[in-house]
Amino acid sequence: MHMGVALFALGIALTAVTSSAADTLAVADIGSFHVGGRAVSLSGLPTRDVVFTAGSAPIKVDPNGDFEVEQMYVQYVKLAQPKAKYPLLLWHGGGLTGVTWETKPDGKPGWQAFFLRAGHDVYVSDAVERGRASWARYPEIFTTEPLFRTKKQAWEDFRIGPVGSYKLNPAERVALPGQLFPVDAFDQFFKQGVPRWSSTDAQIQAAYNQYVQKVCPCVVLVHSQGGNFGFNAALAAPDKVKALIVIEPSGAPKPEAAAGGKLKGVPHLVVWGDYIGQSDVWKRFVPASERYMAALRAEGGVADWWDLPKLGVSGNTHMLMMDKNSDQVAQMLQKWMTDQGLMK
Amino acid sequence: MHMGVALFALGIALTAVTSSAADTLAVADIGSFHVGGRAVSLSGLPTRDVVFTAGSAPIKVDPNGDFEVEQMYVQYVKLAQPKAKYPLLLWHGGGLTGVTWETKPDGKPGWQAFFLRAGHDVYVSDAVERGRASWARYPEIFTTEPLFRTKKQAWEDFRIGPVGSYKLNPAERVALPGQLFPVDAFDQFFKQGVPRWSSTDAQIQAAYNQYVQKVCPCVVLVHSQGGNFGFNAALAAPDKVKALIVIEPSGAPKPEAAAGGKLKGVPHLVVWGDYIGQSDVWKRFVPASERYMAALRAEGGVADWWDLPKLGVSGNTHMLMMDKNSDQVAQMLQKWMTDQGLMK
Repeated sequence: MHMGVALFALGIALTAVTSSAADTLAVADIGSFHVGGRAVSLSGLPTRDVVFTAGSAPIKVDPNGDFEVEQMYVQYVKLAQPKAKYPLLLWHGGGLTGVTWETKPDGKPGWQAFFLRAGHDVYVSDAVERGRASWARYPEIFTTEPLFRTKKQAWEDFRIGPVGSYKLNPAERVALPGQLFPVDAFDQFFKQGVPRWSSTDAQIQAAYNQYVQKVCPCVVLVHSQGGNFGFNAALAAPDKVKALIVIEPSGAPKPEAAAGGKLKGVPHLVVWGDYIGQSDVWKRFVPASERYMAALRAEGGVADWWDLPKLGVSGNTHMLMMDKNSDQVAQMLQKWMTDQGLMK
Repeated sequence: MHMGVALFALGIALTAVTSSAADTLAVADIGSFHVGGRAVSLSGLPTRDVVFTAGSAPIKVDPNGDFEVEQMYVQYVKLAQPKAKYPLLLWHGGGLTGVTWETKPDGKPGWQAFFLRAGHDVYVSDAVERGRASWARYPEIFTTEPLFRTKKQAWEDFRIGPVGSYKLNPAERVALPGQLFPVDAFDQFFKQGVPRWSSTDAQIQAAYNQYVQKVCPCVVLVHSQGGNFGFNAALAAPDKVKALIVIEPSGAPKPEAAAGGKLKGVPHLVVWGDYIGQSDVWKRFVPASERYMAALRAEGGVADWWDLPKLGVSGNTHMLMMDKNSDQVAQMLQKWMTDQGLMK
């Protein structure tokens, strides 16, 4: 809000700060690793015979034994000549994976590509329980059952269409007026979805904290469910997290967590899309981060709060990084990082 | 076998055919997509209240609704100046994901990096049911329960140590003499493992076939469980799959499938590591692909069969792409592709 005037100007006068998508990227290294997690052993489960591959003989499977669980997966692209001082870590939201940041469901370049071309080493991860991080047996290790988001839930909760506007037939779905999610690619987007658990926050956070210790100093950019993990990761390692950008956090630590000013040197930015006031879900989610960011500000920290429609950028859904104006929002974030002194 | 003499020479006189790992890669594009799968709707399941993010309010979850299932995930790195005529598609084995091809568990570069530096556009995928492809509810959509590989199973079945040599304590594990898997990284390797189903072969194959239609002409390099999918993908699209390299296939189509010589123009190469004769599992798996490759050869096709120890390369486990000599084996494959006229 206190940056509102400057950003209104920014929002309507964005110039291309990145190289063309057609340019060659000079890449020093592409790689990946798993980090965090623990060894666990199971016993007392029954054995069975299983044919694993068509044409092959059956194998007796004993499910008891030793496993690795609760690790997370990280993939990085390092540039030959990064322009950013620190790597940029992209953390996805709930029921999704790092694919959130890759090519958009409509086939256009996403934020991984944008920020690589803007000069950042970019790290994309899958949090514990999903994607290439893998998931663990329930109820033996994860204590609850997985949950599978429906298209109706995403259509409504991600503010693509109002409650009641989702239909199975794509032609009958009615989106919010002016919204910018590429609705023709909604079913394609849904192929990115993964099951989620409601009982794994501590394990997810633990792995994120280990990831930060392994890779940072860094800038962390998080989305939705990732917001809470990002806020807590910064609290756990204020020396390692050089800045935190939080896109539509679904939760936040209690304001007391910010006491003592330990995050004074870690600029925070929270970004909201459009239609928040029309969504009962998001009206309930916003206050937690509002209180937390106010506490950071009261402690003397940089805690910027962008309500995009108030900055002249309207039509954004919960999936800002997939919306048609995703490059415009990314450029605003790039400008913010530059203003925070995070570029060379 | 008929290439044995030439390859023995190759095996002991390999020279670096790729650029140094320290060189900059000129990358035209990095991106990803999901392909295949189908829409499905569920009804009749009970609702529940769930807190998704610490600090956020509970949400009523209705598990009934519409979903996308049985898609697969593909990530690509395209070079500015590829030296290969076609993209190289890397397909992983069972209970694993595309991470198989990325940085090795010991932190050294894997085959994705090797073949990028050798001049191929490289595509790495996660098959249906795992990794970023996601998985579907069971028993409603997948008809069986997931299976979780134990460390003991992998240690023995991947021929790192003999049956009975696995122990929970890494210091007490006894590997096969001369084997080349980096045993200090075995538990780290295990973090790459994902659950698998024994009832999803048809869905996996269907998505692979759609992937080939979308991306190819191409060269396909598959591992283990992927072998069967690779053989069948070539049968389904002999005009699109320009060559097939199969690392330790756990299955193969019936020889009759090769009838009519439709694969005459699609060179096949099957590669085996060491210790096959000491493994009851692998002694049972080898004959299916032996018969299939013989049938291809009888039809006039190129069907090369490499038993690496007979070619002077000993110590390879089932995870050749992670073994300490992975670059050496990759160079042999690179030479084979060159010999087949697949480089520019």
